[in-house]
Amino acid sequence: MEEMASTPISQNNFNKKMQPYDITVKNGTILTMDQTGSILENRAVHIKGDIIARIGDDPACEAREVIDARGGLILPGLVNGHTHAAMTLFRGLADDLPLMEWLNHYIFPVEARMDADFVYVGTLLACAEMILSGTTTFCDMYLFEEQAARAAAQAGMRAVVGEVLYDFPSPNYGELKKGFEYTEMLMEKWGPHPLVSIAVEPHSLFTCHPDLLIRANAMALNAGVPLIIHVAETESEVAEIQKRYGKTPVQHLAALGLLGPHLIADHAVHLNEADMERLAEHGVKVISNPESNMKLASGTAPIPQLLTRGVIVGIGTDGCASNNNLDLFTEMDMVAKIHKVVSLDPTVMDAETVLKMATIEGARALGLSRITGSIEVGKKADIIVVDTHRPHLTPMYTPYSHLVYAAKGNDVIHSIINGKVIMKDRRVHTLDLDGIMAQAREKATLVEAWVNGG
Amino acid sequence: MEEMASTPISQNNFNKKMQPYDITVKNGTILTMDQTGSILENRAVHIKGDIIARIGDDPACEAREVIDARGGLILPGLVNGHTHAAMTLFRGLADDLPLMEWLNHYIFPVEARMDADFVYVGTLLACAEMILSGTTTFCDMYLFEEQAARAAAQAGMRAVVGEVLYDFPSPNYGELKKGFEYTEMLMEKWGPHPLVSIAVEPHSLFTCHPDLLIRANAMALNAGVPLIIHVAETESEVAEIQKRYGKTPVQHLAALGLLGPHLIADHAVHLNEADMERLAEHGVKVISNPESNMKLASGTAPIPQLLTRGVIVGIGTDGCASNNNLDLFTEMDMVAKIHKVVSLDPTVMDAETVLKMATIEGARALGLSRITGSIEVGKKADIIVVDTHRPHLTPMYTPYSHLVYAAKGNDVIHSIINGKVIMKDRRVHTLDLDGIMAQAREKATLVEAWVNGG
Repeated sequence: MEEMASTPISQNNFNKKMQPYDITVKNGTILTMDQTGSILENRAVHIKGDIIARIGDDPACEAREVIDARGGLILPGLVNGHTHAAMTLFRGLADDLPLMEWLNHYIFPVEARMDADFVYVGTLLACAEMILSGTTTFCDMYLFEEQAARAAAQAGMRAVVGEVLYDFPSPNYGELKKGFEYTEMLMEKWGPHPLVSIAVEPHSLFTCHPDLLIRANAMALNAGVPLIIHVAETESEVAEIQKRYGKTPVQHLAALGLLGPHLIADHAVHLNEADMERLAEHGVKVISNPESNMKLASGTAPIPQLLTRGVIVGIGTDGCASNNNLDLFTEMDMVAKIHKVVSLDPTVMDAETVLKMATIEGARALGLSRITGSIEVGKKADIIVVDTHRPHLTPMYTPYSHLVYAAKGNDVIHSIINGKVIMKDRRVHTLDLDGIMAQAREKATLVEAWVNGG
Repeated sequence: MEEMASTPISQNNFNKKMQPYDITVKNGTILTMDQTGSILENRAVHIKGDIIARIGDDPACEAREVIDARGGLILPGLVNGHTHAAMTLFRGLADDLPLMEWLNHYIFPVEARMDADFVYVGTLLACAEMILSGTTTFCDMYLFEEQAARAAAQAGMRAVVGEVLYDFPSPNYGELKKGFEYTEMLMEKWGPHPLVSIAVEPHSLFTCHPDLLIRANAMALNAGVPLIIHVAETESEVAEIQKRYGKTPVQHLAALGLLGPHLIADHAVHLNEADMERLAEHGVKVISNPESNMKLASGTAPIPQLLTRGVIVGIGTDGCASNNNLDLFTEMDMVAKIHKVVSLDPTVMDAETVLKMATIEGARALGLSRITGSIEVGKKADIIVVDTHRPHLTPMYTPYSHLVYAAKGNDVIHSIINGKVIMKDRRVHTLDLDGIMAQAREKATLVEAWVNGG
């Protein structure tokens, strides 16, 4: 009482006292993506601080901020399990080329010349695109990754980031030794951040010496963070590993002691039966990137077979140079369709399975399923709203099908991440989109000069 | 002079006299999609009546209406070469099922009970979606097709429509004899319409007796209209035709005398080398529907091989029950990617080739290339504008790549069809979207009752 009396009861404080919640998202159908797959009609999600505090009735107004889903769908924010965010600045730079020509004439020359600011601007641009298309969490692998962490924090997005490690000198850290130090620095500096966490990210089996891989694995295990690596993306990679070590990529990982539930294998396109069994047995997580695998003509990952074996599989867009977008809605559509036609079975990869991969299973793959990926009391509030009052989503018989086969990123109207309203009515609150686009155009001028040898 | 004096010079008349053009689309990069593939920067398209009158400078204001492309892309409206428009009302009704279960338990029972108004509402809804995603011309095959014609005319869309003909009684016309009469009636009534034209559309080789096919072909040739039919969509169709006639579908068409430049073969998934040669030799047109073929697990059409042989190939979405959308931007993305991964060659189906298929080649396939499909003086003004001032389209190195791999239907901001502004700043001028969606929801209630045996 005395404390109350000594503090003037401002309107703000008064409201806080009367309102048990900070945000209420009301007037929608909630796709919880919880273990029972509950779909709750005409219900509301109540948020207190950064936490989902209650899922319940739809009162007129009981929070500081009330967000109207307008009769649409309320679902967990999407999880982009693998990307190279700053490559937004290379989108469309060169396409439809043989892989080595694309890498040698375009990607490698520009990556050799880019700097921290380049990655910062490119990642901000990526965050803008991801927020606008319903992604709330992404997992990044690139160079100058502290800038990716900064950009994600500024955008208010949840992110797992890691500096790419390989046998060559890096334009960021130089010698490999410094790469490990840089990763240590990231873990120390960003460890306590509420949105950003760090992973150890050796590039691939063909760009990383076994010593590098063993050391990276030890570092990840020691720090209790994920170890993330490209695995068996192309046939030529498999042939190369076979040639060098007489093993498949998964056998090579096994021989080095890297298989375990902390390992996230990106792509995993070319696996044999024994490889798949082994991944399942060791609880290795997989992130599938079908659009990139299609565009680069890498092949089709055996995702239905991995799911049958109980492997946890999330979905990634890969970078914009090989997709060329970060929209998980089109990626979901592709995941569902490519496996049907490859297996000649229309029942595989049903819409609910695919939506799980883009939400709770993606979160599980990244080790974040206690935090995000579903709408459940006690989890962090990472929530998006899809407006269904649109011709291409009307009428609606089954929400899962609409989200996977008909909805587009643009149908997402609101986004809440970690209890903060990041986008409302398609206005992104955390980023100056015009400013970022202007900076991106400036960077593109540099890129064009670099490609032309300037 | 005297006539001038006798008529008061209203502001309106005065302006008309001073303005040689009715509409100018300015401030954009024009992708003409003409034979030389010209891309014209900072130019304007001037429209007089329904015709593209000039492509030239970008004057401040010289038309009655000036449409600002805001520095974006000005291109021909997209051509959806094959759809069943009214099936928007079945979108998401049932998915991920074996084909026969889907047809027998869902599609056939509801189609047996639908009526003219159902097709009218469903097609209006489809037109809304297509306009909003950049399509200006579509080719339809369904039941109660006069309603599809009415809906297209009301929407202001260019359309080729045809009543589906098959051996069974139709819920529209009853006995087959009446089906031919109905098609005659459509040709007579809609022949002179500036937007709608009619085709003869037998359903498929396995649902149509040879007599039906021969008669339909004669009717099409006699009227000088396209003959449109599903061909070799599934392996089971090929097996059935082989069993019945000892021929591949294309051999069967050849034996019946149906091959010719007036024939449009939809799907054409399962073709052998000789079939492809034959299609090329006779100038048969093909419409590819990859998303539908993937979702129904039908297979992948040999499109690169057909293009190599000089076959004219357009792109279709097929109906919403098997896609589940009418967005040609996602369809283009799929066309480009599926053939790369199937052939394991990233250079096939480059972005420019794919964009041609969705514009001028699609128009050519439908026999409309003198009218639409490119921005050329003398053609009808069917033009869309894509806003590129968006994070996922910034920066832009190459427009073709952006349109195929990164843009979404929603990025289309303006649409002009036959010289009329149909959509401006994403407001559709010809349709009451809220009213159509309300009617669509009512029809969905009927559909649910029909599926449940009501």
